Amino acid sequence: MTSLETPALDTPLAAVSAELYFQIQQFYSVQMRLLDTGQAEAWADTFTEDGVFHQSVAPALRGRHDIAVAARRRIDQLVTEGRTRRHWFGMLEVHLEDDGVVGTSYYGIAMATPAGGQLQIYASTEATDSLVFADGRWLVRHRWVSHDATV
Amino acid sequence: MTSLETPALDTPLAAVSAELYFQIQQFYSVQMRLLDTGQAEAWADTFTEDGVFHQSVAPALRGRHDIAVAARRRIDQLVTEGRTRRHWFGMLEVHLEDDGVVGTSYYGIAMATPAGGQLQIYASTEATDSLVFADGRWLVRHRWVSHDATV
Amino acid sequence: MTSLETPALDTPLAAVSAELYFQIQQFYSVQMRLLDTGQAEAWADTFTEDGVFHQSVAPALRGRHDIAVAARRRIDQLVTEGRTRRHWFGMLEVHLEDDGVVGTSYYGIAMATPAGGQLQIYASTEATDSLVFADGRWLVRHRWVSHDATV
Repeated sequence: MTSLETPALDTPLAAVSAELYFQIQQFYSVQMRLLDTGQAEAWADTFTEDGVFHQSVAPALRGRHDIAVAARRRIDQLVTEGRTRRHWFGMLEVHLEDDGVVGTSYYGIAMATPAGGQLQIYASTEATDSLVFADGRWLVRHRWVSHDATV
Repeated sequence: MTSLETPALDTPLAAVSAELYFQIQQFYSVQMRLLDTGQAEAWADTFTEDGVFHQSVAPALRGRHDIAVAARRRIDQLVTEGRTRRHWFGMLEVHLEDDGVVGTSYYGIAMATPAGGQLQIYASTEATDSLVFADGRWLVRHRWVSHDATV
Repeated sequence: MTSLETPALDTPLAAVSAELYFQIQQFYSVQMRLLDTGQAEAWADTFTEDGVFHQSVAPALRGRHDIAVAARRRIDQLVTEGRTRRHWFGMLEVHLEDDGVVGTSYYGIAMATPAGGQLQIYASTEATDSLVFADGRWLVRHRWVSHDATV
């Protein structure tokens, strides 16, 4: 194989294009940077108006307002502690569901570094999202994050 | 540059398309999730019938049967220990070899979290794969994983 | 959505194609493997002749010569210590700037493993690059790396 031709997958993932996969990757990079830089309200705005954010370590948050309030509380805590937090997503798998919904599965790790201190990577997670496209951008309709420590 | 035009690379990587790169990324996500969720036989089935899985810390495994047996043994051990394991691949480089073979190089990290305990990231590795496309899906013909601790 | 159609983004990122995103990803994989395998001069050659490499923990390096000298010194130190270093980039965001310049933002982690010892992931960073395309390949014109410990 020395040309650009790429074989046609014969799996449930075949309908996903590189273009879609890249859009989701880029969406996640932008989305999580909003959270990591302390923009709680802009982060909540990447969910649908009635979006759900549910982690295995906390009750489900329903709607942008509740998602923003919880994010803001955590961000304020990190600021007080003088810690910079980062979320990494990896091992992304994208598939198509019905009615224009895009489903994803991915791993996440969360880390924080205190000013002048040592990096600590404190959580490994597995997540699934339902994403919808509206008004020219991707939005999270439902996110489920399972923390490995709670499995 | 404000349009969609992308310049043409003049390197050995030029023949690889975004579509191929994305297929391999997605393949790895699906493949390693099989292993991390304890599906030893399904994981072994992502290798060719005579596939080789060789790590610098163990003798080479040859063929799906031996690959599945070794994976099953390790999974049983993790279940007994109550630990959830995750493999992350990153810094992926994809190139074309002869006769339809796709070669890849990538980094890997392995981590595990005990139930109710602390995440431990215990290994950094560098790997190279030879991948072939058969029956509508990608398969690993040969995987070499060099653990940084054994370099 | 069961076909290949991908919706059209209506954001500043819309002009970036999967093809460009993939080229940058692949570039970073190749670039950082050069550094991690001790090829200081080849690594410096992935910057423009007058390229700048500026980290929050050190004075800015200007031009390939200075970049190579600093990289060589650090590599020699790692060899003396018997440690294998790895750089991972993640959460990549690619956008187009004026005059054919591609801007990126991404997270990085740096880790090292001593021979026969334990992996240590010692730094989390956030970086922004200005990339230009010349002579059939991508080059870094400016890299700014902010270490979380120095924020």
